Amino acid sequence: MLKVAVLVSGGGTNLQAIMDAIDNKTIRNAEIAGVISNNAGAYALERARAKGIEARCVSPKQYDNRELFNKALLEETQKLNPDLIVLAGFLVAIPPAMVEAFPYRIINIHPSLIPSFCGKGFYGLKVHEAALARGVKVTGATVHFVDEGTDTGKIILQKPVMVEEGDTPEILQRRVMEQAEWIILPKAIDMIANGELKLG
Amino acid sequence: MLKVAVLVSGGGTNLQAIMDAIDNKTIRNAEIAGVISNNAGAYALERARAKGIEARCVSPKQYDNRELFNKALLEETQKLNPDLIVLAGFLVAIPPAMVEAFPYRIINIHPSLIPSFCGKGFYGLKVHEAALARGVKVTGATVHFVDEGTDTGKIILQKPVMVEEGDTPEILQRRVMEQAEWIILPKAIDMIANGELKLG
Repeated sequence: MLKVAVLVSGGGTNLQAIMDAIDNKTIRNAEIAGVISNNAGAYALERARAKGIEARCVSPKQYDNRELFNKALLEETQKLNPDLIVLAGFLVAIPPAMVEAFPYRIINIHPSLIPSFCGKGFYGLKVHEAALARGVKVTGATVHFVDEGTDTGKIILQKPVMVEEGDTPEILQRRVMEQAEWIILPKAIDMIANGELKLG
Repeated sequence: MLKVAVLVSGGGTNLQAIMDAIDNKTIRNAEIAGVISNNAGAYALERARAKGIEARCVSPKQYDNRELFNKALLEETQKLNPDLIVLAGFLVAIPPAMVEAFPYRIINIHPSLIPSFCGKGFYGLKVHEAALARGVKVTGATVHFVDEGTDTGKIILQKPVMVEEGDTPEILQRRVMEQAEWIILPKAIDMIANGELKLG
């Protein structure tokens, strides 16, 4: 059984997709060991608790400096003893020590087809704003391993999504979630849990 | 009837796709006014002549310097009196004077999903080599207007193509042609010929 730690900053729709996929066996042989958010008000924490999953906040506000926060984040994650760490909309830079502690054991979902609209500054709605500003007709989402760079790690899965006439960043964000993120993130976890993808 | 000038450097499979689409009425209300290649040995020239289409070579080798070549290229293109110039695998930088002479009247096909793998240095097989090196799972092709930059013009159409296990740059190049380029380039010409896309 693959033990998964989910790190999330916001509403937790990707977390929900993972929980649903475990329930309906789209993800086989995996369970969520716990959920961590940097944001005490994240609805993702409620989603987890409603399912009886351990959920806690580790916020930079609780610590005097970034180093102490990074240390706490790593420690709280390690307490869950995860086989895999899933960044499911986690808007915090992953400390290098965590990347080092979990080589090829951290995956991230990014709401574009990397290498388009990724790297520093491209997160959340900004990704879709940039895609619409460039006038692309195809966007999508990417699941990738996390390395020391920003969105530079090995790509696991990508799924394209067509941009439509009249799309706003919000509408496009939702469509990319529904048509890509909620499908490929659970699929990547299932592949890893069942040895269909080499970790490293 | 939209008069189209096609500029091409190589084998001319995109030219063939355009000619076929005109024959089978996938492209309506357009005709090829002529084909120009920078390469005297381009098979594209033979394809055109076999259809009774005017085809000529304008090679940098025929001119003492780049300026004279650029001038000749513009003049030969203007002689065709085209409503639209289609770069169908034309591996020559379009002279600024030509962009100025044909605003929103020059379109290009690029074998990736712009803004991925585009700009200076990304042409032909190099695009697919770069895509495979980055490990993307989705690539595709883009039809865009040509402006003063390299692959920076307004996007008209894009179509995604999945990368498959075992793809080489050559195999991927062929699949992107078949599944994307030969479809969206004729479609863009048809849209322009029939007023379904504003030119500028």
